[in-house]
Amino acid sequence: MAPDGALELLGVVAYGELAAFDRLAEDARMAPDLADRVAVTAMAAIQYGHFRSAADRISELGGDVVAMMEPYRRAFDEFHALTRPKSWYEGLLGVYIGDSLASDVYREVSDRSDDRTRELVHSVLDDEAYDAFVVDRVRAAIEADPEISGRLALWGRRMVGEALSQAQRVLAERPALAGLLTGASDGSLAEINRIMSRLIENHSARMARLGLSA
Amino acid sequence: MAPDGALELLGVVAYGELAAFDRLAEDARMAPDLADRVAVTAMAAIQYGHFRSAADRISELGGDVVAMMEPYRRAFDEFHALTRPKSWYEGLLGVYIGDSLASDVYREVSDRSDDRTRELVHSVLDDEAYDAFVVDRVRAAIEADPEISGRLALWGRRMVGEALSQAQRVLAERPALAGLLTGASDGSLAEINRIMSRLIENHSARMARLGLSA
Repeated sequence: MAPDGALELLGVVAYGELAAFDRLAEDARMAPDLADRVAVTAMAAIQYGHFRSAADRISELGGDVVAMMEPYRRAFDEFHALTRPKSWYEGLLGVYIGDSLASDVYREVSDRSDDRTRELVHSVLDDEAYDAFVVDRVRAAIEADPEISGRLALWGRRMVGEALSQAQRVLAERPALAGLLTGASDGSLAEINRIMSRLIENHSARMARLGLSA
Repeated sequence: MAPDGALELLGVVAYGELAAFDRLAEDARMAPDLADRVAVTAMAAIQYGHFRSAADRISELGGDVVAMMEPYRRAFDEFHALTRPKSWYEGLLGVYIGDSLASDVYREVSDRSDDRTRELVHSVLDDEAYDAFVVDRVRAAIEADPEISGRLALWGRRMVGEALSQAQRVLAERPALAGLLTGASDGSLAEINRIMSRLIENHSARMARLGLSA
């Protein structure tokens, strides 16, 4: 992969993680108690660490961190603005869905990148210790109040819909990134659709893990 | 110092840093550009690191992190609720004033604590690399628009007033902490007033550094 491709990928990851930090810091405020607030604040700090790794790698490659993030800002900001959680559980589910989806996308792209960038992206993705926390809390909430599951399933569908529509827009606007994703120089629509199907399958499996229909 | 005293101090520091994290994460959203947003997000991450150090030390001493923070929650939350910044510059000034004041208090108390706790608290305080960022930004804003300085001076007075009134309430409610602060078992009012005067002097010096009257 050309350094430019690595920079594109690292720019997406950096801004994505910065936006995830912001969302988690906001979610922490909705925590029902101080212990859960500490747990979500810790997740936010992890996202900041991911941002830092991606940003440092951009600098190493001679890129400008802010300039590399700028093109992806609108997509992530719109996604977050359109999926602002109205409750603690919507927030938790949002973290789980959004973060997992982002991880799947980063993984797809990084598999075609240079060794060091791939290694960095994978180390970011391996840091999923808090998935267990989210799954545990959401399952307990559904057990305590089965009616919540319909609303959360709907919320999950909305989140993934918004995420995929932003992703499609970014890929249309950034052919270099689309090329990275599909392995072709232009990124054919058919290949992008195959990848989207894979992302939706993974998403459905995760929703099932929570006892929710996708 | 008895371990109980250390736990009291670490509880204040832990919740204070958690609350500071939250305030900074919110302030980051008001940043005029992405570079400043990254800078303030980095400050939030530093505060989380401080929280983590204090929390780990509480656990080491056999304390419960959440239980040790709980008594200080109301004071910090009220302080932050009463001093919610309405602009980027109020936010920056608030960080500078609030954080410096908190550092002064932690320093006063830790000087009377055991070696390891003192060392930990001081390492937290030494991490003041971002003071320069805040001073630089606020001074530039005042140069560009001298009228802002009157409003910021007023804001500074309000912040320090609220901080001292919360501190006084905490010391009245937590005699063990007041005792730590004054070095006496009960914490006499006269000694507390002497310490408050010292805090106000330091605060005035910092405002002067910004070109603002305290």
